[in-house]
Amino acid sequence: MYSIGVDIGGTGIKAGIVDCKGKIIYRDQCKTDVEGGFDKIISDINIMVRKLISDNHIDKNEIKSIGFGVPSFINKQGKVTCVNLKWHEVEFVSKLKEVFSEFNVFAENDATVAALAENKYGSMNNSNISVLITLGTGVGGGIIINGKPFVGAHGMGSEIGHVVIGENIYDCNCGNNGCFETFCSATALIKYTQIILKDYDKNSIIRDMCENDLSKIDAKMIFDAYRQEDYLAKEVIIRFKKYLAIGIAGIVNTIDPDIIAIGGGLSKSSDIILQDLKEMVRNHILYKNEDFADIVVATLGNDAGIIGASLLN
Amino acid sequence: MYSIGVDIGGTGIKAGIVDCKGKIIYRDQCKTDVEGGFDKIISDINIMVRKLISDNHIDKNEIKSIGFGVPSFINKQGKVTCVNLKWHEVEFVSKLKEVFSEFNVFAENDATVAALAENKYGSMNNSNISVLITLGTGVGGGIIINGKPFVGAHGMGSEIGHVVIGENIYDCNCGNNGCFETFCSATALIKYTQIILKDYDKNSIIRDMCENDLSKIDAKMIFDAYRQEDYLAKEVIIRFKKYLAIGIAGIVNTIDPDIIAIGGGLSKSSDIILQDLKEMVRNHILYKNEDFADIVVATLGNDAGIIGASLLN
Repeated sequence: MYSIGVDIGGTGIKAGIVDCKGKIIYRDQCKTDVEGGFDKIISDINIMVRKLISDNHIDKNEIKSIGFGVPSFINKQGKVTCVNLKWHEVEFVSKLKEVFSEFNVFAENDATVAALAENKYGSMNNSNISVLITLGTGVGGGIIINGKPFVGAHGMGSEIGHVVIGENIYDCNCGNNGCFETFCSATALIKYTQIILKDYDKNSIIRDMCENDLSKIDAKMIFDAYRQEDYLAKEVIIRFKKYLAIGIAGIVNTIDPDIIAIGGGLSKSSDIILQDLKEMVRNHILYKNEDFADIVVATLGNDAGIIGASLLN
Repeated sequence: MYSIGVDIGGTGIKAGIVDCKGKIIYRDQCKTDVEGGFDKIISDINIMVRKLISDNHIDKNEIKSIGFGVPSFINKQGKVTCVNLKWHEVEFVSKLKEVFSEFNVFAENDATVAALAENKYGSMNNSNISVLITLGTGVGGGIIINGKPFVGAHGMGSEIGHVVIGENIYDCNCGNNGCFETFCSATALIKYTQIILKDYDKNSIIRDMCENDLSKIDAKMIFDAYRQEDYLAKEVIIRFKKYLAIGIAGIVNTIDPDIIAIGGGLSKSSDIILQDLKEMVRNHILYKNEDFADIVVATLGNDAGIIGASLLN
């Protein structure tokens, strides 16, 4: 038996046929036609998935389920509102069930789906209480309890990127001040670096790296400058890690997981991120002398979306 | 059949025989002999519980379990460290099992135990995901999922009072800055009022209420002054509610409960605390147009400790 996982992102959609060991045996992808609208995207997915099945001569009866990961919250009625996809209260789940009526269809938030994959086949060892924190453009989260996605009573759980953990120099897109993701996303790193470079700094090597065009700064540049011991990159990364430790400690103080995995684009610099992080978190939890969650780097990378979606049931 | 609940506090210990409907049918209490040490306290509990059973002619075979609530975290080895009780890594669970060897013995954190009672017989309606927030000297929390205490992988979950939610003008006893309880406990209310009165204020009626002795200020005085429209009390309560909303929103963004109950001493002023609170929380969650947790006042008061402990199994 196989399952199909579909990972819907803001720029691309990836689909894969996954075997019972979590291995993607066939895969395909297409552009996310955001301007085309909801129906066009569903139609593109339908064409891609059915082609994937037929091209690879998979018997439909061999397909246990099709799972979808979506970069948003799915409410109890199966509706999705997603700014990046320009969807407003679209009938996501019912439409998928209509289009793929001969299959078992499931859908969940993308970070939750990735957490499921990391829990089952990746970094989180089938732990009872697992949390994935994705550090990318934003900060996302997925919670898996006893092997199942934990999304709360209304499906809006694990939105840890918008938990307030401090007071910041700029507001979050969500309208609040102090959200985890305004301190610990790639966007946050870039924004804070730009502010210091613009207003205070003359000597950071980041100025050369971006050829004095601050809009060219990306997170990799900041980590590279840190590796070269640039004082400004150090200041930025120290601040980032301070708040990362506070945010993780909040999760430990609230749900006390067995394991926390760090994924997302920034996890490529996991050598810098994980160094001393556990001890920094220890300083911010209540029971400082006790065992608490292991903190590791996610291992499935971009495949986590497909694999996790295929695991939904 | 009956169960016995024992609520161990910093100043007193309460025990009750509870029937299968959650009603305390017999009860007793004694002083917590903190100076006498761990063994003395356990001995006092033993004497009180056995007297409660014999005085009321309860057959031991009719007692399903004895449960204990303790104002601390119980680690996986059953050990407890509690500053208020002056216990350092005492063998709490194994000692109780020895002393009450003919009974089924269970123990859990006191706020978790109170949450269990509120979930089963009080304010939280047997909801699937219930959170009790106790606003007292400190801020405590209890999480009940599907009728069971959720204490995390190492037993240190639901310590929401020490989740960092901002940046405060003084540090928490735990060594950090910005803990929920440094904004939203009775202690926090008093401390902030004292600071303003001492350094800035001349005209608040709280100055008269405490007869100019700032050490006499208590939380009730501040709420009373608020009811009399004292401008300083208003400022203090507005700040308290701002951070209460941020703290609750963090819980919603993380575990998205069905219901959140506010208990503890401050909940006596629930008319002031709950007013507009849900809308204030809505402003701090990510999905502002969606349904989210009801916020209610806890209803079992001081009995929640005994009733909840009796429910442990």
